[in-house]
Amino acid sequence: MASGGRKRKLIVQKYGGTSVGDISRMQNVARRALAAQRAGNDVVLVVSAMSGETNRLLKLINDITPGASEREQDVVLATGEQVSVGLVAIAIQAAGGKATSVLGHQCRILTDSTHSKARIQQIDGTRLIDAMKQGHIAVVAGFQGVDEHGNITTLGRGGSDTTAVAAALEADACEIYTDVDGVYTTDPNVAPAARKLDRISYEEMLELASLGAKVLQIRSVEFAMKYRVPLWVKSSFTDDPGTLVCEEDASMEDLVVSGIALDRNEARISIRNVPDQPGIAAQIFGALDEKAIVVDLIVQNPPIDGKSDLTFTVGKTDLAKATEVVKKLSKTIGSGEISTDQDIAKVSIVGVGMRNHSGVAARMFRTLSDERINIMAISTSEIRVSCVISSKYAELAVRSLHTEFGLDATAKKPARKAK
Amino acid sequence: MASGGRKRKLIVQKYGGTSVGDISRMQNVARRALAAQRAGNDVVLVVSAMSGETNRLLKLINDITPGASEREQDVVLATGEQVSVGLVAIAIQAAGGKATSVLGHQCRILTDSTHSKARIQQIDGTRLIDAMKQGHIAVVAGFQGVDEHGNITTLGRGGSDTTAVAAALEADACEIYTDVDGVYTTDPNVAPAARKLDRISYEEMLELASLGAKVLQIRSVEFAMKYRVPLWVKSSFTDDPGTLVCEEDASMEDLVVSGIALDRNEARISIRNVPDQPGIAAQIFGALDEKAIVVDLIVQNPPIDGKSDLTFTVGKTDLAKATEVVKKLSKTIGSGEISTDQDIAKVSIVGVGMRNHSGVAARMFRTLSDERINIMAISTSEIRVSCVISSKYAELAVRSLHTEFGLDATAKKPARKAK
Repeated sequence: MASGGRKRKLIVQKYGGTSVGDISRMQNVARRALAAQRAGNDVVLVVSAMSGETNRLLKLINDITPGASEREQDVVLATGEQVSVGLVAIAIQAAGGKATSVLGHQCRILTDSTHSKARIQQIDGTRLIDAMKQGHIAVVAGFQGVDEHGNITTLGRGGSDTTAVAAALEADACEIYTDVDGVYTTDPNVAPAARKLDRISYEEMLELASLGAKVLQIRSVEFAMKYRVPLWVKSSFTDDPGTLVCEEDASMEDLVVSGIALDRNEARISIRNVPDQPGIAAQIFGALDEKAIVVDLIVQNPPIDGKSDLTFTVGKTDLAKATEVVKKLSKTIGSGEISTDQDIAKVSIVGVGMRNHSGVAARMFRTLSDERINIMAISTSEIRVSCVISSKYAELAVRSLHTEFGLDATAKKPARKAK
Repeated sequence: MASGGRKRKLIVQKYGGTSVGDISRMQNVARRALAAQRAGNDVVLVVSAMSGETNRLLKLINDITPGASEREQDVVLATGEQVSVGLVAIAIQAAGGKATSVLGHQCRILTDSTHSKARIQQIDGTRLIDAMKQGHIAVVAGFQGVDEHGNITTLGRGGSDTTAVAAALEADACEIYTDVDGVYTTDPNVAPAARKLDRISYEEMLELASLGAKVLQIRSVEFAMKYRVPLWVKSSFTDDPGTLVCEEDASMEDLVVSGIALDRNEARISIRNVPDQPGIAAQIFGALDEKAIVVDLIVQNPPIDGKSDLTFTVGKTDLAKATEVVKKLSKTIGSGEISTDQDIAKVSIVGVGMRNHSGVAARMFRTLSDERINIMAISTSEIRVSCVISSKYAELAVRSLHTEFGLDATAKKPARKAK
């Protein structure tokens, strides 16, 4: 955000697939970008593939083989964004503006060589700055980069493209346009009383994104937070100001809980009677890591008679693989029965206000208990408390907590922390 | 063709849009390429966009504006080939082979900056050679390049991509796979007696391509001729050996005429009573050139009373524009009536055998005359005679000439030149 001696402000706008889903929507994007430019800003757009296009390309690939090389998949998939940036640039020109499309390898968005989920190492903003100096709107292909050997890479669905570009350009603001009009206290499909937030801190947004809130991706928020770029989440279909993701300020702490997240994509594995010996946990989680299985929540009870129960959660898609690993190991280490459960949900409350307030977790447990919802596992961070519960109670839990922490749209006064 | 000390032969295969029109056809391409590799060759493929894809992309562009910038059109259109190379590489891998896709900017096919019809300036074959050294089939995106500033360019429909790659790699052979199985003596749709040629010289092929034979493009043949790369025209749907385009040898001269071309895309403009003054022709054709109108055949009769009639042909699509130019000029230069005719056809006979034989043109005129076909204009080169006739006689002219010069499939003995 070091705008320094620059006179014009620099805004980076990101448009997702639905926002460029057809020609008329692209023309809408062009109008919005030109309005921002006419308001006195330099404008960079980061654009996704037209909605449906990535899936169309994936189908072509999978029709040949389900095991296509990731390098070649990236070559095919990167065309989705390439078509979008060309068309959006043309739409801006047709609306009387000046625009230049810029591909990942032109930008140059340098990444490592991890095809399909490459990480950005460096961005050379020269080409973008040159374009803007000539009065052009630079239209950057999202989702793609190039490795040091000139191979096309894709960044995976992390969305780091936009905020990384914004960071590289020291942008004054980064606006993410999607099909929702901001960040909500929780998923409105789950809790109809959900409320749009005007502001939320980077830290809270990061926790919500980690917990499955889809509006912003983790890496996107990480970049914005690291380089302190103010991040707006807006709808491309309305003129609503949206939600500002920014640095924490004192007023945010007034609110104990800012949002409630629900994650249904995990499954639970429990191992009974694990011998309480040094290195056993390392052995189990090391073996899972070797198979690239990401373990989320881990709970181990204190040992009784030198044995303890171990529970952890993994992504549902990894459950079969993880169970196999654990079954093999249990013979070696001499542990007991293994049980798994896919019908679980993880409900989390997030808020910077709970940093200095110890009663929040207890209040969450009490609320769930009042609804007779059993808690299978608990995990906490400085600004988050997560509970694993039976999936059939997921909506009930979210709604109860939403009301308890004063987030309901109808609530006159949000719950403030005890002073 | 300087294969030098190399042990393995290097074959460049080009597959057009219909040859990669769907997944099963791509798998067919993969099989063919792998067969060539297993036979002991290094193999480079040059691949077009899937048939229909370029038109789909053009429609998206034209739905925004008919006047889109050519730079951005190139960005969008180049994705067609990018998808193809990725998928063909995946198809080769799925069939058990090794393959690497290579885009225009990776190759690196350096062109000038004339978007939509860029000309190749240089090709760096290093990346292709490296891939082949590792046992990979290199799959190159056709139709595209990159200019010195890193902008994506497309080469237009000249097909120079393939033979340029073959030339850069000093390939031992270049195989062009299309939906026809070779070069024919004439269009079989016009003359059912048309015969597939086993061999044809570069010079003859160049004349035929200039005259509208669609199987090979002019620039493609020019490159092959310049670098003496043997060029095969084959069908991707059969195992027929196809037609070899190569250097002229003695046996080719035995045949007076190798092929007959028919071009219906021209229109005639005639200007009566053009003053016979120095600089008048330069004025007329200079004005046409300024409007980028390509003039093909020009005939000027000797002047009578200081005035002569001037006839020339232009592409039908340029007729209106050309007529306008000529009408404006005729006032300045004081020439007479202007007439135009769209119902014309240009019939040409081509053969290296006519180099040393003066009776060929006369034999052509006599054949047309015998069929009572009036000749409106004549033009000749060392190995070609072209006549402009009324379009309604086009098929009749082609068939008569085809028979006269002994090209019919049923003819036992092709016509030999008088010795």
